[in-house]
Amino acid sequence: MNNRFLQPIEEALYDYLPSADCRERKLVEAMRYSLEAGGKRVRPMLVMEFNALCGGKPETALPFACAVEMVHTYSLIHDDLPCMDDDDLRRGKPSNHKMFGEDTALLAGDALLTLAFDILTSDDTAALVGDKTCRRAAAVLARYAGASGMVGGQVIDLQSENQRVTYDVLNDLVGKKTACLIQAACELGCLAAHADEGKIRAASEYGECIGFAFQIQDDILDCTSTDEVLGKPVGSDEENQKSTFVSLLGLQRSKQMVDNYTAQAVGALRRFMGDTQPLTDLALALAQRKN
Amino acid sequence: MNNRFLQPIEEALYDYLPSADCRERKLVEAMRYSLEAGGKRVRPMLVMEFNALCGGKPETALPFACAVEMVHTYSLIHDDLPCMDDDDLRRGKPSNHKMFGEDTALLAGDALLTLAFDILTSDDTAALVGDKTCRRAAAVLARYAGASGMVGGQVIDLQSENQRVTYDVLNDLVGKKTACLIQAACELGCLAAHADEGKIRAASEYGECIGFAFQIQDDILDCTSTDEVLGKPVGSDEENQKSTFVSLLGLQRSKQMVDNYTAQAVGALRRFMGDTQPLTDLALALAQRKN
Repeated sequence: MNNRFLQPIEEALYDYLPSADCRERKLVEAMRYSLEAGGKRVRPMLVMEFNALCGGKPETALPFACAVEMVHTYSLIHDDLPCMDDDDLRRGKPSNHKMFGEDTALLAGDALLTLAFDILTSDDTAALVGDKTCRRAAAVLARYAGASGMVGGQVIDLQSENQRVTYDVLNDLVGKKTACLIQAACELGCLAAHADEGKIRAASEYGECIGFAFQIQDDILDCTSTDEVLGKPVGSDEENQKSTFVSLLGLQRSKQMVDNYTAQAVGALRRFMGDTQPLTDLALALAQRKN
Repeated sequence: MNNRFLQPIEEALYDYLPSADCRERKLVEAMRYSLEAGGKRVRPMLVMEFNALCGGKPETALPFACAVEMVHTYSLIHDDLPCMDDDDLRRGKPSNHKMFGEDTALLAGDALLTLAFDILTSDDTAALVGDKTCRRAAAVLARYAGASGMVGGQVIDLQSENQRVTYDVLNDLVGKKTACLIQAACELGCLAAHADEGKIRAASEYGECIGFAFQIQDDILDCTSTDEVLGKPVGSDEENQKSTFVSLLGLQRSKQMVDNYTAQAVGALRRFMGDTQPLTDLALALAQRKN
């Protein structure tokens, strides 16, 4: 996956951290630790690409890109805590609470979430995009990240553990837990460039579709890699109590869904006049990824 | 303490909660549970009083009042978690994680923090106060609640456990952990009424001073009530490893500080033309409270 905005994103992320020259240095170090453990930066890349597609300058979208990544990072820190998934590792490194203790990890997540809204509504960001756009961007992020969005999806996920859920529940879960923040990223990119409502809706559709495609492809990879290790038939969910698209629909129909969602995402790009190739490539790369 | 805005605040708080008619009902119930366990609603009262003092209509300030209370409530839920203070009780009721489990309590806190910014930046709030005021209010709340404010204070608090700290550290701790959110409330009240910068600064000074007076009075009450139970000399901190103003400065100088801060807070109200009596009374009531 080619992220042509990776370098400015990485630089800006750390520039937004508060100074570590204070008594609460450990907090800033914990925030930085998890930001540095970042993966492919898919969400900030989506902000930057939609902004570019709508004719915006990169520097205008950088605060929005960083805010979305801060929210994503906070959600991973809280997800890894012992009372949640209890993960000791995140992307091959010790998880935040393993490095800094549970208390600091909890607060580092809280601080990153708060920092996201600080960035979106600061005087500096307002000078770049105007008060209304700042205000709307914060509203979009809060709506998609909160109780009716990502956090709601996490609660549905908790309730779905160790039981077989219906397709409707799984759809609600993935839509909220995974797709919502990706949708927010796409909408924020359009907002940064002052795009019209039609374009924002199209970006939202693209985001929702690649969010689902991403999660279903994840389930497929989990299932096929597990099968290689265990030598068990594809699609068996005996070892995995959690319902996934693969366990509910089987491998073939799941692969079909990834293709359908990806096609719908690419189709939504027709609404835009500019060069849609980077976002088409991104949708295809996510669908075809092997890890 | 007379809170003439209590009823509209209570009503608005629950109106802002998402509908519980969803799969993540347990999350909304957990959010509501801790909001209902609310105490004196000092912070929303400050928003409403400063708004009134600056000539604003009550309904204009209600979203701001609710947002500050959401942030306060989230901080209490996370503070009570086993990895933090590990409190089973909050205001005589089981703490959130005792009722709903640690995972849901963590997420209820996250959702309340996010909801605060949702409220401040929604289209409805923008229709009441305008885009710029929404944007600035969110910026003020994020700054005072985040890594350089309340969350930073919580980290300093964690680092100060079981050791005697200097007066400078305690000052930094209390300023951030307690005073910052109270300052935010006072500033938000002025913002809701479109008050000028001089008034916002005066409100901020009032908030900082009553924040300190509140915390020092808390330390005094903790110390004197403990002494009644244990029959030990006032000011003894053998039982309490944590440094407080009383353990550092003694009871007499601490009482003097409460009086000084309260006088400074009341003095800051000179900047305002309207009826400052309610805020004068509030400062005095906080300083003289017995529980």
